[in-house]
Amino acid sequence: MLGLMQDWPLLCHKILDHAATYHPKRSIVSRSVEGPIVATNYRDVRSRALRLAKRLDKDGIKLGDRVGTLAWNTWRHLEAWYGIMGVGAIYHTLNPRLFPEQIAEIVNHAEDRVMMTDLTFMPLLEKLAGKLPTIERYVVLTDAAHMPATKLKNAVPYEEWIGEVDDDFRWASFDENTAAGMCYTSGTTGGPKGVLYSHRSNVLHSMIAALPDAMGLSSRDVIMPVVPMFHANCWGIALTAPMTGAALVMPGAKLDGPSVYELLNEHKVSITAAVPTVWLMLLQHLEANKGELPYLERVIIGGSACPRAMIKAFQDSYDVQVIHAWGMTEMSPLGSLGSIKPEYAHLTGEAQLDIQVKQGHPPFGVEMKITDDAGREQPWDGKTFGRLKVRGPAIASSYFKGEGGQILDEHGFFDTGDVATLDEHGYMHITDRSKDVIKSGGEWISSIELENLAVGHPDVAEAAVIGVRHPKWDERPLLIIVPKKDRRIAKDDLLKFMEGKIAKWWMPDDVVFVNEIPHTATGKIQKITLREQFRDYRLPTAAE
Amino acid sequence: MLGLMQDWPLLCHKILDHAATYHPKRSIVSRSVEGPIVATNYRDVRSRALRLAKRLDKDGIKLGDRVGTLAWNTWRHLEAWYGIMGVGAIYHTLNPRLFPEQIAEIVNHAEDRVMMTDLTFMPLLEKLAGKLPTIERYVVLTDAAHMPATKLKNAVPYEEWIGEVDDDFRWASFDENTAAGMCYTSGTTGGPKGVLYSHRSNVLHSMIAALPDAMGLSSRDVIMPVVPMFHANCWGIALTAPMTGAALVMPGAKLDGPSVYELLNEHKVSITAAVPTVWLMLLQHLEANKGELPYLERVIIGGSACPRAMIKAFQDSYDVQVIHAWGMTEMSPLGSLGSIKPEYAHLTGEAQLDIQVKQGHPPFGVEMKITDDAGREQPWDGKTFGRLKVRGPAIASSYFKGEGGQILDEHGFFDTGDVATLDEHGYMHITDRSKDVIKSGGEWISSIELENLAVGHPDVAEAAVIGVRHPKWDERPLLIIVPKKDRRIAKDDLLKFMEGKIAKWWMPDDVVFVNEIPHTATGKIQKITLREQFRDYRLPTAAE
Repeated sequence: MLGLMQDWPLLCHKILDHAATYHPKRSIVSRSVEGPIVATNYRDVRSRALRLAKRLDKDGIKLGDRVGTLAWNTWRHLEAWYGIMGVGAIYHTLNPRLFPEQIAEIVNHAEDRVMMTDLTFMPLLEKLAGKLPTIERYVVLTDAAHMPATKLKNAVPYEEWIGEVDDDFRWASFDENTAAGMCYTSGTTGGPKGVLYSHRSNVLHSMIAALPDAMGLSSRDVIMPVVPMFHANCWGIALTAPMTGAALVMPGAKLDGPSVYELLNEHKVSITAAVPTVWLMLLQHLEANKGELPYLERVIIGGSACPRAMIKAFQDSYDVQVIHAWGMTEMSPLGSLGSIKPEYAHLTGEAQLDIQVKQGHPPFGVEMKITDDAGREQPWDGKTFGRLKVRGPAIASSYFKGEGGQILDEHGFFDTGDVATLDEHGYMHITDRSKDVIKSGGEWISSIELENLAVGHPDVAEAAVIGVRHPKWDERPLLIIVPKKDRRIAKDDLLKFMEGKIAKWWMPDDVVFVNEIPHTATGKIQKITLREQFRDYRLPTAAE
Repeated sequence: MLGLMQDWPLLCHKILDHAATYHPKRSIVSRSVEGPIVATNYRDVRSRALRLAKRLDKDGIKLGDRVGTLAWNTWRHLEAWYGIMGVGAIYHTLNPRLFPEQIAEIVNHAEDRVMMTDLTFMPLLEKLAGKLPTIERYVVLTDAAHMPATKLKNAVPYEEWIGEVDDDFRWASFDENTAAGMCYTSGTTGGPKGVLYSHRSNVLHSMIAALPDAMGLSSRDVIMPVVPMFHANCWGIALTAPMTGAALVMPGAKLDGPSVYELLNEHKVSITAAVPTVWLMLLQHLEANKGELPYLERVIIGGSACPRAMIKAFQDSYDVQVIHAWGMTEMSPLGSLGSIKPEYAHLTGEAQLDIQVKQGHPPFGVEMKITDDAGREQPWDGKTFGRLKVRGPAIASSYFKGEGGQILDEHGFFDTGDVATLDEHGYMHITDRSKDVIKSGGEWISSIELENLAVGHPDVAEAAVIGVRHPKWDERPLLIIVPKKDRRIAKDDLLKFMEGKIAKWWMPDDVVFVNEIPHTATGKIQKITLREQFRDYRLPTAAE
């Protein structure tokens, strides 16, 4: 027997309708790519998103078509998302930090029909244009006055283009499982693969993200997503903010310390979100200029592990609560957030930081488990690591066009590729990537923990740890060190420095010193290259 | 094109799974019907709900079957909901405050197969038992030691009954639109009609209810639903609390001032919810005993309009924030909540109360409109009233077995039967029931506002206003007054008292004095009887 409740599909444009109806004048302030600060609100953004939808519709963009965006966080990019979704098409955010060839490959794989771009990325696109046969039109997110001469196909300035129509348009209607957005993941192995969000997953993810133990977003908040809209679905903020009626501050192209600082204080931002690199720049600026953060209440830090010192600095020096979070493009992206459960509410100082360096706990709608290589679940004791696997309504079931094949286990869980511990209260701590963990005699050693320890030595600039074949233990850790400029380190000194800080059997079997460690485009250590390089390395302990 | 996200149906038992996994030891404290305080937690409640599900399954209770509950708020009633839903059956809460004949009528209409009852209601059921042919078994929510002798068919004590099996049971799996719960509405007209919640609507409603601008529920909260589980789906709290990991305090059968006060302070309740009558008892107790509420932060008040003085008392005398809310059994039930939007955040004192006496604003997932009788939308100016109509994923589309016929308008909106204003920020204010509003020359007059005004006169005990036929204006207001004991009021004095406080054309055309005004079982004025009684009343203004 079915319930007798209304059929009200979870569609993303209902989020903007809600904002425009119940929070019509709530401010959306952007640093425009042209320079000046531009203020608008949810009512006007909706009206312009409707124009954009009508204009796309006029060009024949329809259900299931992909529209690429190469753009910073501004009100126009926000309008683009909703206008595109509003005709049933798919916003496809492109990461401009990828290599140009990768961008072309992704656009072609996605078969984007329209490309909406900021002025910033026109030179890049002009270089690539000959390689992008599926693009029928380039829409430049600016007005006629700022529009440069270009040979990009059918290029038009956004303002004039949407100005050709009015906002008398009805959002398309369709099944809630219809694709809404697309974002390619840039792994360190294999080609980029497209994650395809649905309207349903976006709406559910937004509800989950707004919950008090996640972002806790309300209409009284002013949220600044410094995390770009092209990074992992903007951590959901472009959808969660209008759902809750929170005001938005959009930082445009300037993510440096002084620019972010200015927006935080000028526009009384109460909550913000970005990767540690951004906060490092802000903290340096604050320290150098004796800055203060009188309005900021919470900062969400994710994308990579948040250093302990960063949590401490925000909380102790600036009275800003850090919410350490973890997620993946494949997870829409939120997986866990580090709000404090009552079990840990009594902790202070270092004991509290011990909890906050973990990546937090999953909200309702994210199921987690950790398993060994055979798929057996591991205990939640805060010590045992396992492959982290997740299940939920806003988590990928496969990639676009079936790339990468079947990605779920027999229980429907997605393997995150991370290795983690879970404690008795469900706090998750990433200890490694599963392909980097060192498997020594059936037990796992975290390469990341060894690296973090080694870089604590005053003469070490960078450290990498990989597993090297060992006749008895299968693999043992090899520590690869780049010394600081003009410093020399003795192997034994370094090992002695590490002694006592880790289990004995975790101690690297050898140390090699190099001038450079290879990195990926996004700055991560390229372990695959290191493993190739040291494939035949013979450890001194490998006496056969 | 569909998104590529996991198929993760929104099923209610996932809420309890989440609570048991991530908040296993969070406390659930109940005042048991037997007397003592009983403490348990989400892990144990889940384990026992699984036993209950297994036991129901053994008795052949299956997908779509109805299981009645006549019970107070306790851990056992909570287990019952989840155990029943966990086999795909439907928890059907019965309101013990209805007339016994109505209860029998409802049980028979619903065709309940099992009845789970508190000790309190055994005498009632023993009287009715002969009239309840569909009930195959009575499960008494107690243990063998407290089980009285009874002739109720196949009666068993709950503890021993679920003790016959272990918790090794898998929740049934089914479509998310499957019916989960049922609650009959007791209107003042027509017979009771069954609202049938689905798993999907319950899960979505819980997410919406937990949002910061709604209940704002987190794992650090301790919530006490004084609103009974048999009243309008417990305002969602039996589902929202475990979803967020909030601790629960269940008040059992004792809802009087001293008992509620004791639980609030003994168990450090941070948020609670009930109808104004409950809070009147608490406030009287607090005043008489110089009580304090050091832990309570928020109180949700709904069910009927919250008096201004009550909001003031909670906020000014006890530093407890009032969230005035409105909903309906047909809405799962939340429709709007009175959290303060930034537009009103600067208000204090009486100006703030002016906003707080309104019923609040709808969260995402509730769409509202106000229309005239012809269905034309009315302006959101805070003054113009119209019929309040609502649409959303947790709002009824029809009643069980099609009672009442088609209940949605051509745009899919449900007519709430209320008349309301909406202001520019979406705050809704109920001004009347649509069948009670007086339609004078095409304009509407609120019977409730006139009643509220008249009871302000020191000699008036109770007041009712109905529309009486008028040859020129169609209807004009007639004021019906019960004077206070041994007081006499002159008609002209009363009208003079009202003058200047309302628009001239709202002034009642006549006043009649009576000894008594008829009431419904739930204490509301029975206007249908009054209208019948005064059907041929000739107003002095009705000169034909």
